[in-house]
Amino acid sequence: MRTQVLIIGAGPAGLLLSHLLRLAGVESVVLESRSREHCEHRIRAGVLEQGTVDTLNEAGLGARMQREGLVHHGIELLFDGKRHRIDLTTLTGGRAITVYGQHEVVRDMIASADEHEQPLYFGVSDVTLHDLATDGPWVGFTLDGAMQRIDCEFVAGCDGFHGIARQSIPHDALQIFERVYPYAWLGILADAAPNCGELVYAHHTRGFALFSMRSADVTRLYLQCRPDEDLSQWSDERIWAELHARFENDDGWLPSIGDITQKGVTPMRSFVCEPMQYGRLFLAGDAAHIVPPTGAKGMNLAVADVRVLSKALAAHYREGRGDLLHAYSTTCLERVWRAEHFSYFMTNMLHPSLEDSPFVERLKLSELRYVTSSDAASRMLAENYVGLPFHE
Amino acid sequence: MRTQVLIIGAGPAGLLLSHLLRLAGVESVVLESRSREHCEHRIRAGVLEQGTVDTLNEAGLGARMQREGLVHHGIELLFDGKRHRIDLTTLTGGRAITVYGQHEVVRDMIASADEHEQPLYFGVSDVTLHDLATDGPWVGFTLDGAMQRIDCEFVAGCDGFHGIARQSIPHDALQIFERVYPYAWLGILADAAPNCGELVYAHHTRGFALFSMRSADVTRLYLQCRPDEDLSQWSDERIWAELHARFENDDGWLPSIGDITQKGVTPMRSFVCEPMQYGRLFLAGDAAHIVPPTGAKGMNLAVADVRVLSKALAAHYREGRGDLLHAYSTTCLERVWRAEHFSYFMTNMLHPSLEDSPFVERLKLSELRYVTSSDAASRMLAENYVGLPFHE
Repeated sequence: MRTQVLIIGAGPAGLLLSHLLRLAGVESVVLESRSREHCEHRIRAGVLEQGTVDTLNEAGLGARMQREGLVHHGIELLFDGKRHRIDLTTLTGGRAITVYGQHEVVRDMIASADEHEQPLYFGVSDVTLHDLATDGPWVGFTLDGAMQRIDCEFVAGCDGFHGIARQSIPHDALQIFERVYPYAWLGILADAAPNCGELVYAHHTRGFALFSMRSADVTRLYLQCRPDEDLSQWSDERIWAELHARFENDDGWLPSIGDITQKGVTPMRSFVCEPMQYGRLFLAGDAAHIVPPTGAKGMNLAVADVRVLSKALAAHYREGRGDLLHAYSTTCLERVWRAEHFSYFMTNMLHPSLEDSPFVERLKLSELRYVTSSDAASRMLAENYVGLPFHE
Repeated sequence: MRTQVLIIGAGPAGLLLSHLLRLAGVESVVLESRSREHCEHRIRAGVLEQGTVDTLNEAGLGARMQREGLVHHGIELLFDGKRHRIDLTTLTGGRAITVYGQHEVVRDMIASADEHEQPLYFGVSDVTLHDLATDGPWVGFTLDGAMQRIDCEFVAGCDGFHGIARQSIPHDALQIFERVYPYAWLGILADAAPNCGELVYAHHTRGFALFSMRSADVTRLYLQCRPDEDLSQWSDERIWAELHARFENDDGWLPSIGDITQKGVTPMRSFVCEPMQYGRLFLAGDAAHIVPPTGAKGMNLAVADVRVLSKALAAHYREGRGDLLHAYSTTCLERVWRAEHFSYFMTNMLHPSLEDSPFVERLKLSELRYVTSSDAASRMLAENYVGLPFHE
């Protein structure tokens, strides 16, 4: 087999890339180690930046998102027992976020791939990348028990943090930047109608908590916990009691209680590899960088990378231009580092930590008061949260 | 002897307090352990916020400052070999900073105290504070070899970080918040006309550097160094070479070289004590809080404290109101923590540190790019730098 761009990974990055390449007349094949079922149901991020929504709409992938996504015009920060609203739309000249699960985005993209007969292989294994530093890279893998080989002109590594793509690059060709946080999130899904229309980020001496929603019937909630937290120690009763303690505020609002249908621990990590390219291999999304979930940037960064990569590949094939591909890593990393900084800022400000001195804990409260009282500081938070404009 | 308010310390805080109290019809005595000569010539901070300038002008202390002070409408941040201007005045709706040495402010205040026959004793020693938790505190001290006692109604501790006032408060009555930075500033005065009209803050992999000015003929320069830096290792030639390496930029500007007339090492510390009051003792300025010099906030915070304290004491004496005195610490601490956070932010962003991981160093560069490219982030820096409005 042969294709122009071999894409490893059928998450939002890989699927969007194959879609955008098809629109640009570039052929691609997508390989995914997991099952289709798994990809379509894996609960991940759910906050789409304005630019992500625009990108999906422009690509013709936004129909269901427009019907079912929840457009939010603000978020709330809760601290010192008070709720403070950040009016995202007013502060950013009309921009907003859309709450729409990553797995819903993936379902829409897989449906579109099917419709356009985009080659998309689930359940592949033993993926190996070869001759990346040459003009003729190829990928080996096993499908239905048979060994396969696809020759290609470019490989796109969209297979996430633990994927094979980044690991196929010689160690001395990459510089790694990383921070592992001394806390994690205990997340639950509850069968309870969300009783607040916007996300609520709470800073409490007991730890951070986040109120979010998956749909009109399902609430998503998170509690700061230890990275090695033992879920068996968390009965439903304990979880609700802890949530209610951390969300306590002078308005009396508290998240509605419902049956807990899912529990899990999300680790918190910041990670960037530079450059995001090695020869004919281009990394996009989590394969190249990880942000802690506090800033809601993970999937949005993947979409931003793919915008740049699809345009660069289109310019190569249509106009014979190599400059955009050459600049790919530099172009992406500017936005990546902005998002890394914002995610670090939000994470640090909102999470008390055993690592913090009393001085640093006081600084966090001062920072929270400032971002909820200064117009400039509120705008700074808002413009990052809804996503800075694309430059490319 | 007896007075209404006994003020310990003849720095900007103590001298301004005695001045504002006199204008409000409240009598005070100022005690200072150093000589008048020392106070008038000790080189310290030199950047006055707009609100500090306004306060001095309103108090009738601004005549020479208006003639000799250098009004600056911007600062520069230098990183990645490029200079970036923050237009303070445009970004803050017309506010500015004034470069005028703290010792000049002190000289003007001492001259005014002399003119109005304000009791002001230099060279006192063995100062002890007594009965602070009662309505009749008193202060003992030695002057010209004779033991003295002054009975008073209030004591104002304006004697700096190492002074006796804060140390006279029982340890268990105060909560201390502190950070000592793993670096310091090597500062010089040079007989060279400043060849840039605004302060230049440089972030370089070799370390931070600051270009500033004392007058039209004298340049003030700083280099990040170790806290235990040995000045004998720094020849004039080495200092200039290091400064020129850190200020290197694509415009080719470099500080003019001149004879170095003073060298010293400034430690970097953040410190706050809470509350800023114990019984009839009120702390103001460095006695209660220290900021690293990067944000140029030290003297400005002292002036802000004294504004609050003088109004509270005036309300007590004129109207019998105790509420402002009662709220003194809470009122001041809101501004103090804002300034602590800003100073910490500026310090961290501008200083590379051996404590930093490569990840954190990249975040600092991303933050520098952001504050020099986003209007919201530039405004956030500018509004803090020129000083947020007074609320009281």
